Amino acid sequence: MADSRPGPLGIVAGSGALPRRLIESCRAAGREVFVLALKGEAEPATVDGVPHAWCRIGAAARGFDLLRANAVTELVLAGAVHRPSLSSLRPDWRAAKFFAQVGYRALGDDGLLSAVVKELEREGFRVVGVDDFLEADALLPAGPLGRFLPDARATADIEHGLRLARAIGALDIGQAVVVQQGLVLGVEAIEGTDGLLRRCAGLRRDGPGGVLVKTAKPGQERRVDRPTIGVHTVILAAEAGLRGIAAEAGATLVLDRAEVIRAADDAGLFVVGVTAP
Amino acid sequence: MADSRPGPLGIVAGSGALPRRLIESCRAAGREVFVLALKGEAEPATVDGVPHAWCRIGAAARGFDLLRANAVTELVLAGAVHRPSLSSLRPDWRAAKFFAQVGYRALGDDGLLSAVVKELEREGFRVVGVDDFLEADALLPAGPLGRFLPDARATADIEHGLRLARAIGALDIGQAVVVQQGLVLGVEAIEGTDGLLRRCAGLRRDGPGGVLVKTAKPGQERRVDRPTIGVHTVILAAEAGLRGIAAEAGATLVLDRAEVIRAADDAGLFVVGVTAP
Repeated sequence: MADSRPGPLGIVAGSGALPRRLIESCRAAGREVFVLALKGEAEPATVDGVPHAWCRIGAAARGFDLLRANAVTELVLAGAVHRPSLSSLRPDWRAAKFFAQVGYRALGDDGLLSAVVKELEREGFRVVGVDDFLEADALLPAGPLGRFLPDARATADIEHGLRLARAIGALDIGQAVVVQQGLVLGVEAIEGTDGLLRRCAGLRRDGPGGVLVKTAKPGQERRVDRPTIGVHTVILAAEAGLRGIAAEAGATLVLDRAEVIRAADDAGLFVVGVTAP
Repeated sequence: MADSRPGPLGIVAGSGALPRRLIESCRAAGREVFVLALKGEAEPATVDGVPHAWCRIGAAARGFDLLRANAVTELVLAGAVHRPSLSSLRPDWRAAKFFAQVGYRALGDDGLLSAVVKELEREGFRVVGVDDFLEADALLPAGPLGRFLPDARATADIEHGLRLARAIGALDIGQAVVVQQGLVLGVEAIEGTDGLLRRCAGLRRDGPGGVLVKTAKPGQERRVDRPTIGVHTVILAAEAGLRGIAAEAGATLVLDRAEVIRAADDAGLFVVGVTAP
């Protein structure tokens, strides 16, 4: 009789705090993991003391071999990946075959991620969402997280921002916008939300500060690329002179919820889960 | 019998090289001008040796008085205006009345400019486009300006960028995007094209460089806010590692065409007028 216990959870780890958080959640739940750490993306601390191997993004054949050699059948993609140009990717034969099939340049981030998920499933892996393995409260609920609430002016900026963020997402450009008093201070593209917040610090106008609005892209492959906020997001938002953060309820991952609330309350920022119209 | 000669052309001057260029074109054509220089926007050199007065953006009543006192009936809005928040605008009674009518915060840039033009016409001024007073070749023609042409890959980036720039414009966010090998490196919002190009320098990927694509917003009030490129744009594009600039033919102003061509040829960049799909 075959052993029905699942092997270790395979974690393909990019950058940021999410992969480590996921590893800790799995450990707390007694689930073994094997981490395929992406070179140039995952941080060394992420895989500290954890079964792992490092792999280039372009080395797909080696990646598949490593996952299979470690008895992985169930797979999570976690963390951010700084999407490389095709020329810097140096694809091996397996990656080149995939890119030739999907047309690397023709795809936006979202299209590419969906294609990657399909390809992993074709290789026999079951791809699951990171939130299946995090605490139950990892997803942002509707309503405020901390003590502060948006006033009428901030609410108007949130509504305007939501409409724009959805449109930007539908174009597969990014997930986030910053709006202040009706003015669009910035739109997220490849620089990511941290980069967006940093540059908005220099673009703010006098008067009540702006709002960061972040949503899932319509049709986004949620198993691999959920919008995420963490303590870092709150700190950068405060430094940019913003009054708060609004993100899509039920779709956004909140890393270290208690710390996010503490940071927001300390800085006088609201963090609110909103529902896209 | 009334004097049928028009008074001086009124030039409401914002920042950048365009207002001065316009003044020089008028002088060459023998047309007198009176410049209303916007404080914090227009550069002192713009009004050097030219009949002018300085005026805050929020001081609409004073602005109207100055224009009438100088016999202005025909008016051009030229140069960029760093749109302020309502709180830093300190509107006088006349500006406050206008903003109360149009709802300052509810309007994007384009909506606001259209409303400003309507208000100026209601006050009895004839608002004309800056290109009526510039050299005949001030508008970008279709096709290449200099020696270099986009190759197939750059052409694909231009097409992708055009689609996105039109969409961004329809949302009244901005006029420009930077695309490299299908990746959207950046989207212009309130920071303007120069700011976009500066930050894209740090976002470029290996391999063939990206393309700046700039279009008029659909429904844009072309009398007051045409997309503009100049030598400065070419230099910043080169510094950002781009391969070229594509802008909407027949809608984009080219400042100092001969110098733009020389700068582009020297830097190995293409500058091409394209037609939006």
